[in-house]
Amino acid sequence: MNRDQLKVPKGFILTGVAAGIARKKGKLDVGLIYAQRPCTAAALFTTNRIKAAPVLLSQRHIAKGQIQAVVVNSGNANACTGEKGISAAWESAKLTAAGLQVKPEQVVVASTGVIGVPLPLAKLKKGIEKAIEKIKLSSARCHLLSDFSQSIMTTDTIPKIVSANFRAGGRKAMITGVAKGSGMIHPNMATMLVFIMTDAAVGKDLLRAALKNSVERSFNMLTVDGDTSTNDMALIMASGKAGNKSIKEKSRDGKVFAKKLLQVCQELTRMIARDGEGATKLVEVMVTGARDFSAAKKVAMSVAKSSLVKTAIFGNDPNWGRIIAAIGYSGENINPDSIDIAIAAGNRNIQMCRNGVDPGFSEVQAKQLLHGEELKILINLKQGRAAAVVYTCDFTHGYIDINASYRT
Amino acid sequence: MNRDQLKVPKGFILTGVAAGIARKKGKLDVGLIYAQRPCTAAALFTTNRIKAAPVLLSQRHIAKGQIQAVVVNSGNANACTGEKGISAAWESAKLTAAGLQVKPEQVVVASTGVIGVPLPLAKLKKGIEKAIEKIKLSSARCHLLSDFSQSIMTTDTIPKIVSANFRAGGRKAMITGVAKGSGMIHPNMATMLVFIMTDAAVGKDLLRAALKNSVERSFNMLTVDGDTSTNDMALIMASGKAGNKSIKEKSRDGKVFAKKLLQVCQELTRMIARDGEGATKLVEVMVTGARDFSAAKKVAMSVAKSSLVKTAIFGNDPNWGRIIAAIGYSGENINPDSIDIAIAAGNRNIQMCRNGVDPGFSEVQAKQLLHGEELKILINLKQGRAAAVVYTCDFTHGYIDINASYRT
Repeated sequence: MNRDQLKVPKGFILTGVAAGIARKKGKLDVGLIYAQRPCTAAALFTTNRIKAAPVLLSQRHIAKGQIQAVVVNSGNANACTGEKGISAAWESAKLTAAGLQVKPEQVVVASTGVIGVPLPLAKLKKGIEKAIEKIKLSSARCHLLSDFSQSIMTTDTIPKIVSANFRAGGRKAMITGVAKGSGMIHPNMATMLVFIMTDAAVGKDLLRAALKNSVERSFNMLTVDGDTSTNDMALIMASGKAGNKSIKEKSRDGKVFAKKLLQVCQELTRMIARDGEGATKLVEVMVTGARDFSAAKKVAMSVAKSSLVKTAIFGNDPNWGRIIAAIGYSGENINPDSIDIAIAAGNRNIQMCRNGVDPGFSEVQAKQLLHGEELKILINLKQGRAAAVVYTCDFTHGYIDINASYRT
Repeated sequence: MNRDQLKVPKGFILTGVAAGIARKKGKLDVGLIYAQRPCTAAALFTTNRIKAAPVLLSQRHIAKGQIQAVVVNSGNANACTGEKGISAAWESAKLTAAGLQVKPEQVVVASTGVIGVPLPLAKLKKGIEKAIEKIKLSSARCHLLSDFSQSIMTTDTIPKIVSANFRAGGRKAMITGVAKGSGMIHPNMATMLVFIMTDAAVGKDLLRAALKNSVERSFNMLTVDGDTSTNDMALIMASGKAGNKSIKEKSRDGKVFAKKLLQVCQELTRMIARDGEGATKLVEVMVTGARDFSAAKKVAMSVAKSSLVKTAIFGNDPNWGRIIAAIGYSGENINPDSIDIAIAAGNRNIQMCRNGVDPGFSEVQAKQLLHGEELKILINLKQGRAAAVVYTCDFTHGYIDINASYRT
């Protein structure tokens, strides 16, 4: 049993194939998840007013009931493609459903890639057929998780898979999440596709509430470039194959499940931030001492979004002035004279600002510390007891390179 | 009479000297404006909750009454410098006042540069003394406008001066504005210093109202990197030396004055956007067909702030999908199916999106057009009759270079 097999919860088969939709030859660009029986499911979708065709379609399917398959393509977002785009999304759901002998309404469709270009439906159809073939040849616990995770990548440089084990009603169960996301990343499902599977039986209300809570504290606390995409979604499916009695809200098992789901989502979030377009560093902005969570989030987000802070971190420049300026324009009613700012990497920690002014820190040591690849910016507002963490990355030449020539 | 002389309204003498505050040797870094008699004045200051010492001091001085001198330094923001920073700002006002025989409360103080580092007061004092010497040696209409404009520059690559002539009560009058700004630029006075002089006599109410209105439609419609600074201000002083009867609000002369002031501010705004850190292109995002001005501004700002749009423009990539995505996440209740998007340069114009989809434009022609250095993104929402223009620039390697190593 290889490592990938271990990571797929019971009841799911995954695969990924190359269909020639992505520009790069041979890149896997059509992914398929097949659940052996209909799954309880919940999903969150982009808040962008411009929603891609697959988002509009999948929203309806999720609202209708259970889900048994997910078909995803990278290389084309099928967004701003009008009526033709809607019918292309529906065609791919129908084809997937026919091949797997499920209902079209049980298929979730997702796309990621360039906006405004018609979806090459003939290519996608061939890809779906190929993927269905592979699924049929696979054993129950498919070893093609890795192929699936690659098929949804665009500018991502690494696939993102996280698993967690837990017990439900005495039965062994697991959660596995697969995500993509690298640019156009900002809270509320921004060019981010997240597919989470569990073999536990989970009540629909719990599934929905736990997903919402987890996304609120993970993917919605993530910013790469402040852009929110037209296409994104986080989907969770529960196959029930672990054999436990369906987990209810407010039960002990329910709490364990929610906690594990949060862990999976937060770890995927860290992986996405770390893999932000052109990023060389993962940056966690942690605000404490805020009046409430909303204030803490607003301040953390303001710092995490600041191009000046992110370029300074790229340049290993302990320029806390830019951090405090971003705190100041966050819109929160902070007290300038009570702000503390520190940077941390590993178990080292340097205080750069105390009560709004420089306490006299070593610039040399701070620069050394900033060379770390996983940094924390610690901000204490000393106004209350609430806290929040926002995940981001540094801002580099790589980002400009990738985005000045994404299509051309 | 040289070109610069022509540009200084009657009653003002300006100069700039090198005091060793800026890192670059010999760079002019202390600027002084002396008005031969106390001026009616109005000013707007940064909305950042973290306000630099000179901002706090100048706010008080403006509130007290007339202004007769402005002392500015670049190279150090005197922000987040605690009690010492406040007393340093006050010391420089006192020294300037003593040298020019005015009251300290009649002096506006401004600083721009690195945040959180103590102001080198001894150097600044020497600079002020040198500047006062030069002012005293100057003729009434100082030819050192150019030196002043350079003394306030930081990462700016060109000085920014705009003049306009008009008539008030039958007398010839003029307005001259000098600005600095290049990075940390975002609405509400973000690392932007603007000093405007007029020799017209203008009533205080009109001066205030016209400044507010002009800033609202110029500097507050500008974004380079979304960062709002701790230091910025726009100041206008009216010397009355033109000899006209003081212009009142709602008079014909008042309207002419307000219009000219708006022109000066908008032209300075374009110059600042064009000189955005690392910028190769000026970009004007013009939204029409909005329900109201606020909606138009929100949509235009969302597009103008998008890192993905700005990098695509740098890369000459007609990626209108990123533009429509930014419209979609603006927070405005737009209708995806009624959006038109065009790009324009000079008198050429290419429609990239009609009613939310690609009407079939020539990618080659669009790429050619995007090579222009002054571009317009034209967005029609078709929901109403309001419009707004936001000024920005492209997002380039130069921005990363400048900001990854601003201090070090």
